Amino acid sequence: MRFAVYQPPQAAHKPVPVLYFLSGLTCTEENFMVKSGAQRYAAEHGLMLVAPDTSPRNTGIPGEDDAWDFGTGAGFYVDATAQPWRSHYQMYSYIVQELPAVIADNFSIQADKQGIFGHSMGGHGALVCAIRNPQQYKSVSAFAPIVAPMNCPWGKKAFSGYLGNNQDNWRAYDASELIQQLGYHSLILIDQGTADKFLTEQLKSAIFEQACASVNQPLNLRYHPGYDHSYYFIASFIADHIRHHAIALN
Amino acid sequence: MRFAVYQPPQAAHKPVPVLYFLSGLTCTEENFMVKSGAQRYAAEHGLMLVAPDTSPRNTGIPGEDDAWDFGTGAGFYVDATAQPWRSHYQMYSYIVQELPAVIADNFSIQADKQGIFGHSMGGHGALVCAIRNPQQYKSVSAFAPIVAPMNCPWGKKAFSGYLGNNQDNWRAYDASELIQQLGYHSLILIDQGTADKFLTEQLKSAIFEQACASVNQPLNLRYHPGYDHSYYFIASFIADHIRHHAIALN
Repeated sequence: MRFAVYQPPQAAHKPVPVLYFLSGLTCTEENFMVKSGAQRYAAEHGLMLVAPDTSPRNTGIPGEDDAWDFGTGAGFYVDATAQPWRSHYQMYSYIVQELPAVIADNFSIQADKQGIFGHSMGGHGALVCAIRNPQQYKSVSAFAPIVAPMNCPWGKKAFSGYLGNNQDNWRAYDASELIQQLGYHSLILIDQGTADKFLTEQLKSAIFEQACASVNQPLNLRYHPGYDHSYYFIASFIADHIRHHAIALN
Repeated sequence: MRFAVYQPPQAAHKPVPVLYFLSGLTCTEENFMVKSGAQRYAAEHGLMLVAPDTSPRNTGIPGEDDAWDFGTGAGFYVDATAQPWRSHYQMYSYIVQELPAVIADNFSIQADKQGIFGHSMGGHGALVCAIRNPQQYKSVSAFAPIVAPMNCPWGKKAFSGYLGNNQDNWRAYDASELIQQLGYHSLILIDQGTADKFLTEQLKSAIFEQACASVNQPLNLRYHPGYDHSYYFIASFIADHIRHHAIALN
């Protein structure tokens, strides 16, 4: 597994908090580092950035490269239980356990100061990881996340393939289900462009908004007129997200 | 010819100045817009950004795609005089005349407020265009520019191919020659990473530094320890460059 790291200047002198960014469908560990412009703000606030890849690659599983929204580049941040995917597709455990251990062993970080955010499929992943592990992740935010994967085509395809057809097993990876069961200890920040072509069919931010409201979960869901699903959207609001995490982590 | 445009919010209400960015070898009109993070600063200062492609493409000239440093993606911002290139490779006239006319005809700009900057081959192009047209370009800056193309392998290959072997015809496209002949009306800003692998053999910023000193041309040449030739280097100092131009254009 490959991942990208940005170390802020502060890391030369002391351990720093870590902020994980989970990318969306088709991305690698590179997209966020190249396109988001996050480094300047991470440098200001003294946060290390870690951007993992979005799936295992070259596993030899038949059909892994057949679709852009399943298999390679589309791990969906779940631990697969269905054959043949469960042999390699253990992205949830990788993000929550294996990768943080690798980071703690190799970089000067404050292991008790971690935040997580992401985009689209990665926004889904960030919300799921944070809500299920609130002590590990002090802060969470997302750009245009898939907030209700049990209720959208991308999520149904991924969950049926990786988890099988019993939808009871899907709930552990659906942020709108989880937030009602578990809540989260602090304000969740979500940015969503209104010109995002995936908003209505796939992202469905209103479902998460209603779920949060039903349990009085603090949520700052900001709709931005005219913004689409691209990294230009991310770059436009990345400063606010880094600040959101810095307040919780510093 | 393709080009990319960023219009700042101010352009909705009034004509704005224009800042041209010329990219380096192998780039298209996309690299700068995707990777530099310039938009935030252009928005702050109310500058329109225009990023042209680096050469004609699909001209049908035999061999146009044979090398990464000549032909497609490597127009070197000259008007070719040698066969077969002169039929299409007229990048200098395109940048200085044709493209500004297209921009003026299609966008709300202040045509008398133009600046130009660039990276590597595009830094060379920006310096040459500005020094030769000081009334048109109110400001110029460059990231890791090729400042002495007559004295480096990239430049010699390009100039001999596009301009022929008579080196007297090369001087009109060599910034270190031009600055001694013509000077420039205001401070030139250049950023250069010391870990740039092309610095010693290709970029040779010291030659331009000496040329400026010989004619008392104001130059702010900043060496940055540890920075390489990448867009991460550009993104690290883009705010300073946008501000440099904004001061001249606003």
